Amino acid sequence: MAETFSSFRINPDRMLDSFTQLALIGATGDGGVNRPTFSDAHLAARKWLKAEIERSGLEFRSDGAGNHSAFLLCAGQHAPILLLGSHLDSVPNGGRFDGALGVMAALEVLKTVKENGIRLKVNLEAIDFTDEEGTLVGLLGSAALAGHLSQKDLASPRGGRENLVTGIARAELSDESMLSAARSKDSLAGYLELHIEQGKRLERAGVNIGIVSAIVGIWSYRLSFIGRADHAGSTIMDDRLDASLGASAFTLAARELVMKDFPNCVVNVGKMDFAPGAFNIVPARVDLALEFRSPDAEEFNRLDAALIELARREAGRFGLELKTEFLGKHSPSIMHDKVRNAFANACDNLGLSHVSLSSGAGHDGQSLSDLCPVGMIFVPSVEGASHSPREFTKWEDCVNGANVLLQAVLRLAAG
Amino acid sequence: MAETFSSFRINPDRMLDSFTQLALIGATGDGGVNRPTFSDAHLAARKWLKAEIERSGLEFRSDGAGNHSAFLLCAGQHAPILLLGSHLDSVPNGGRFDGALGVMAALEVLKTVKENGIRLKVNLEAIDFTDEEGTLVGLLGSAALAGHLSQKDLASPRGGRENLVTGIARAELSDESMLSAARSKDSLAGYLELHIEQGKRLERAGVNIGIVSAIVGIWSYRLSFIGRADHAGSTIMDDRLDASLGASAFTLAARELVMKDFPNCVVNVGKMDFAPGAFNIVPARVDLALEFRSPDAEEFNRLDAALIELARREAGRFGLELKTEFLGKHSPSIMHDKVRNAFANACDNLGLSHVSLSSGAGHDGQSLSDLCPVGMIFVPSVEGASHSPREFTKWEDCVNGANVLLQAVLRLAAG
Repeated sequence: MAETFSSFRINPDRMLDSFTQLALIGATGDGGVNRPTFSDAHLAARKWLKAEIERSGLEFRSDGAGNHSAFLLCAGQHAPILLLGSHLDSVPNGGRFDGALGVMAALEVLKTVKENGIRLKVNLEAIDFTDEEGTLVGLLGSAALAGHLSQKDLASPRGGRENLVTGIARAELSDESMLSAARSKDSLAGYLELHIEQGKRLERAGVNIGIVSAIVGIWSYRLSFIGRADHAGSTIMDDRLDASLGASAFTLAARELVMKDFPNCVVNVGKMDFAPGAFNIVPARVDLALEFRSPDAEEFNRLDAALIELARREAGRFGLELKTEFLGKHSPSIMHDKVRNAFANACDNLGLSHVSLSSGAGHDGQSLSDLCPVGMIFVPSVEGASHSPREFTKWEDCVNGANVLLQAVLRLAAG
Repeated sequence: MAETFSSFRINPDRMLDSFTQLALIGATGDGGVNRPTFSDAHLAARKWLKAEIERSGLEFRSDGAGNHSAFLLCAGQHAPILLLGSHLDSVPNGGRFDGALGVMAALEVLKTVKENGIRLKVNLEAIDFTDEEGTLVGLLGSAALAGHLSQKDLASPRGGRENLVTGIARAELSDESMLSAARSKDSLAGYLELHIEQGKRLERAGVNIGIVSAIVGIWSYRLSFIGRADHAGSTIMDDRLDASLGASAFTLAARELVMKDFPNCVVNVGKMDFAPGAFNIVPARVDLALEFRSPDAEEFNRLDAALIELARREAGRFGLELKTEFLGKHSPSIMHDKVRNAFANACDNLGLSHVSLSSGAGHDGQSLSDLCPVGMIFVPSVEGASHSPREFTKWEDCVNGANVLLQAVLRLAAG
């Protein structure tokens, strides 16, 4: 059966035409787009998608969270749905590939299945998730669909409650509708997403397709190195308890530690706050914003212990006290083996090289990974540019990604 | 002649009585005093000093900058004046020794010279300089007396123009009177000050008296380490241009450099400002507040070159750009050889150990060092505490200091 399906390909020119039309909506004139959630440009893009779905003869669907979909009946009305998708919103002055490519590829897969009259075990849905980028909440549409969205999330959203209220009114939605968008486990056969890499690993390795092993988790801390404020003139160097030394030594050593012992992880010291913070006073306290990411839950525990031990050691070396405030975590989302294998087989069948890698950035798939099998693929980003008008992926790579998505769907869902 | 003078000593009980009365004015109940310039407590202390001077049979003098003095005619009316003194103002919640000891010792020297009817080549003046600590301007009275005060200093004072206007009105002074307090070079034979050390060097070395070689100068810079903002999840460690790394490495290396190659100097990184300053963004820029001090002008040039070279090297090591903004300097004030020798001879005569050291903090002497021979001595501070209610110097050490001051005066001014 798979032998028959192996010859199907998406239509590159049709996908390019759609992609280009979409890229013009909210275009910033420098190759990028500016489509923050529920901005005029974003609403215009959503309107265009609805029309494009209807032009294609697919069924347009929407839910209370503002997610817009193309639906294609490939099995019975009550068969589970295999979701494909991404998002049309962008960061402010972002690129035209992030999200948009995934939605256009998903739609192109449905068009291809439809025109070839392929029968599957599942129905297909190409979805544009609401507010992936977090203008309002972040992963909003996918969290709502997965039933993870709470009143609390809506009460204190990352973009401010006022912006959320204004935004959802513009989209003719409400808090109540948002919370009503949850779907049942039974209704979903899986979720597959194509995205640009947002990094240089594929480009550097000269590999066509990245098969995501996991979307990394994030742990964050506020670390306080505490010494003593002293006169920066009359206190000799040896008599100081200078909080800047512990913070600086930790920042350097944390990077060394991760690069040497945790090559799959990243660490960031995004900010230091000095107190009292004057030219002529030895710093009494430095508060440091620490974040680290890992694709693996067990590795997180080891990295966490190693970083906190390192902070203690560096504080102790300079006679400082250390206070640690744990600010929370997101667990890593493991991509499903069945989906990863389908992507790998699809790549092999298409003669495309592939590599397994983790996603350092968050994606809608992480909302869904406890609900259904989830998988993602990345295509190479030129110079790794992302969240920038410089974002660019060669069209050939976009086509490759869409064909891998199609072939993986057929492998997972062939009747 | 010096043989005769060598036997004179100040009266320890009389000085203790005065010192204790003064320490009660603005006392904070924890051993400290709170006498910011022209506060109620400071005005009360000034009023007490005037009365104390008059009770002693000395002549009370004041000038347009609010400096208060005891004057003792020891030579002719037109003979130059040898100034002795310090200040009665304190930092907020400061100690009872800083400044006050120097004024009480100067006054005690005049009382001793007066009661012994000693004829000198110069007249003596024990002065309380206005606003040494910088509640309003800093070194205000001495700068005015030296003719260094400008309209500009009064227009944008460190404590804010409003506080200055309010303060000088409370003391019945004005901008005009301030600028009229300048004295001529010819009128001054020198300036001598006794002060507590504000550090641990004397206590640690077990030495009675520190003879100040120089009051250090201060140079300051804003150094900017500039990298690139990147996604702290999807950008691998090797691909980052993380500004925090250059700033941290410089902070550690600057301390090492100074401790190893510039043991007479100090360096301080008092503050870092991170941009954009978020947990999940690699820092694009860190602005660092750098200050360094040296007692020697030539050494300053070498230290400056070494620090800037170090910043360049550490920036380069992490692929960062470095911007340097020079924020200004105060040159070091060299203490006069003649005065230093007089202090050393006085110590030897009194059987007190002494050591040459620099002052890391600023003092009124630096206002006067281009006008007349200036010298300072330090007495040990217990645990080096300063600008704190914990500030303490054993009374025996205070008495030693006052006797060294007396003996140096006699050596410099014997007829």
